Amino acid sequence: MRQSELFTRGRREAPADEVAKNAKLLVRAGFVHKEMAGVYSFLPLGWLVLKKLEELVRSEMLALGAQEILMSALQPKDNWQATGRWEKMTDLYKLHDRSERELVLGPTHEEIVTPLVKNYLDSYQDLPLAVFQFQTKFRMEPRAKSGLLRGREFLMKDLYSFHRDEADLQRFYDLVSTAYKKILMQLGLAEKTYFTLAGGGTFAEFSHEFQILTPAGEDSIRFCDRCRLAVNEEIFDRQNNCPGCGTEKLPIATAIEIANIFKLGANFSRAFNLTYRDQAGVNQPVLMGCYGLGISRLLGALAEVLSDEKGLVWPEPAAPFLIHLLSVGPAAGSAGRAAERLYERLIKLGREIFWDDREISAGEKFAGADLLGLPYQVVISEKTLAAGKIELIKRATGEKSFLTEDELCVWPG
Amino acid sequence: MRQSELFTRGRREAPADEVAKNAKLLVRAGFVHKEMAGVYSFLPLGWLVLKKLEELVRSEMLALGAQEILMSALQPKDNWQATGRWEKMTDLYKLHDRSERELVLGPTHEEIVTPLVKNYLDSYQDLPLAVFQFQTKFRMEPRAKSGLLRGREFLMKDLYSFHRDEADLQRFYDLVSTAYKKILMQLGLAEKTYFTLAGGGTFAEFSHEFQILTPAGEDSIRFCDRCRLAVNEEIFDRQNNCPGCGTEKLPIATAIEIANIFKLGANFSRAFNLTYRDQAGVNQPVLMGCYGLGISRLLGALAEVLSDEKGLVWPEPAAPFLIHLLSVGPAAGSAGRAAERLYERLIKLGREIFWDDREISAGEKFAGADLLGLPYQVVISEKTLAAGKIELIKRATGEKSFLTEDELCVWPG
Repeated sequence: MRQSELFTRGRREAPADEVAKNAKLLVRAGFVHKEMAGVYSFLPLGWLVLKKLEELVRSEMLALGAQEILMSALQPKDNWQATGRWEKMTDLYKLHDRSERELVLGPTHEEIVTPLVKNYLDSYQDLPLAVFQFQTKFRMEPRAKSGLLRGREFLMKDLYSFHRDEADLQRFYDLVSTAYKKILMQLGLAEKTYFTLAGGGTFAEFSHEFQILTPAGEDSIRFCDRCRLAVNEEIFDRQNNCPGCGTEKLPIATAIEIANIFKLGANFSRAFNLTYRDQAGVNQPVLMGCYGLGISRLLGALAEVLSDEKGLVWPEPAAPFLIHLLSVGPAAGSAGRAAERLYERLIKLGREIFWDDREISAGEKFAGADLLGLPYQVVISEKTLAAGKIELIKRATGEKSFLTEDELCVWPG
Repeated sequence: MRQSELFTRGRREAPADEVAKNAKLLVRAGFVHKEMAGVYSFLPLGWLVLKKLEELVRSEMLALGAQEILMSALQPKDNWQATGRWEKMTDLYKLHDRSERELVLGPTHEEIVTPLVKNYLDSYQDLPLAVFQFQTKFRMEPRAKSGLLRGREFLMKDLYSFHRDEADLQRFYDLVSTAYKKILMQLGLAEKTYFTLAGGGTFAEFSHEFQILTPAGEDSIRFCDRCRLAVNEEIFDRQNNCPGCGTEKLPIATAIEIANIFKLGANFSRAFNLTYRDQAGVNQPVLMGCYGLGISRLLGALAEVLSDEKGLVWPEPAAPFLIHLLSVGPAAGSAGRAAERLYERLIKLGREIFWDDREISAGEKFAGADLLGLPYQVVISEKTLAAGKIELIKRATGEKSFLTEDELCVWPG
């Protein structure tokens, strides 16, 4: 895409109404637009990141054998009364229909997915079963000041699994855990992520969270660097050492919960009488698990954790474009014309390339490219042309290399 | 995909709580699940149709030069008061935040897109500009009894355009109209669609709707078969003849509005003071257009209009899979094994194929396949194997042809 055609542009100043680094950078670089505290719209570059994250996560969910669906945001009060969460959950957005019937604006979907699956589940042969969706969720957060890290409206991937017994639930639980680790590794977040033992609420003794260390986080965890495990401070009275090696006096740090995995057991099955017929023909309760991963929160975490003083730094699988082509000098000059030729050539090769074809100073282009944070910058100037080479800069490290145009067209090989 | 792995299944009986044909068929075939009147969840097959429709519409929007974004569903009351629609629109879902601040659950996005674009729009050089999104909308419909044709919660593509003058707005308006016609033609709906003159509400004298003739529609139109034009009955007192040829006494029919195009003029620009600097440096109001196309409604319309007494009939660009492979006889028999070989071969070729590998009777398979309505059925039985041919049936017409396995692998050529 030609940058001159993009309707958004980077701003020099951080927005005055944002506290969190992720929001400041994402607003400045034109990835998101704030509508209210905790409510953002996604601009073209931010939307491309969301799509990339969705595709990355989707492929892992499909590899688990899960089937994609899309559930409703509007949910009947009855379902929430059946589980007791109409009263218990304090962050529910409740609203009225015309008939004064009350509705919930879905913050999560156990109350919908359990009766939905009940329609299609009869016997043990129908199990295991897993469904997932990418969907906008709503939570009435008391304070929403962490930018994209904690929203009132946010995009989430939620996965629900259904099993015959505890062993099969555990098997799937471990598979999802591995899939989440793989996703976070591909995004360059593995180093800062701790697999964290957390409370199980009213459903189970424990659950697990994927917590990313960052001063911007709203959670506190006790972490063990030897085992890459942690314990959420909330349950440190129950588990006051590393669940792996038993080390006590673990250091404390703030972190952001990017994903969680949760054994629901038979709690929701009981509320909706979801059973299966076992091999002896006897009805048994279905055991369930749920597995959330925040997609817009992941975008925020990448901005918060991987950025540097110059701006955003996108990992390749999340970047809106792989390459930022920067031509120095006027469009009609030799560098401008060479850049246009290269751009057309790379587009024909199907490459994801963003070309800053605007008539602005080289300094502005470089600063703007650093703020946007695409993984690679390709510079074409009179100087590089004279040397017969193109400059390739890796945004994360500043590492430079020089390639011919032909070499760039087959790069990275 | 193997049908044995799909968690949904077709039902013999239509659901008792549905009136509309589209909903009866879509629920029976397992494409959607009803949560409440006018609120549906999309099951794997229905979700695949939505994705196909999204891709089809997206490619036409990008071809117009529009940029994709994703705006928020939660919208501040202030913005709706600024346009006067907080009071005027009677189908708004209003809700309260924790601070008792009032919010709107977006039924449309003029109130969000206008101030959003204002951040990035300065001079005439920034125009024209168009942005679009695929998003879930909410409307408090008084009655919701038409299945997917009129929802309280529905998926919509909305496009907004910004212009310097009326001529440029008209140019873009005509381009969108052509794009919509192209989409409806590709889906096999062109024949039943009328480009319909309708009221412009408080913004303009007229707008245009794309109305599809169907007894299930909730609108009444006066149509002219010579010009393929129509007039919405609502404005027949103002325009009582064909806008093309002037014919009077046009026949009346019920229809469903699948899309609309609307000149907003400067109405929203004025409310949010959205202006641009012209070439003389003088601030001028921006002229706007908006263009909606219901994605989940389109799914409903396809089910309503193209189905027959045997079930759904999907046009190729909307079908969850192109081919339904039906093997007659046990999985371990020669037909079953031949089907498995062919399935693996077609999957390797990247074909969209759905294989009914279940151990059920041939009659059930054929009836189930007709209900699901994939464009082509491929039948493998002892009989076809003996003849060295595979039977290919076109669902829409019942037309049969016989191909060798190798011919099928390069079909449709």
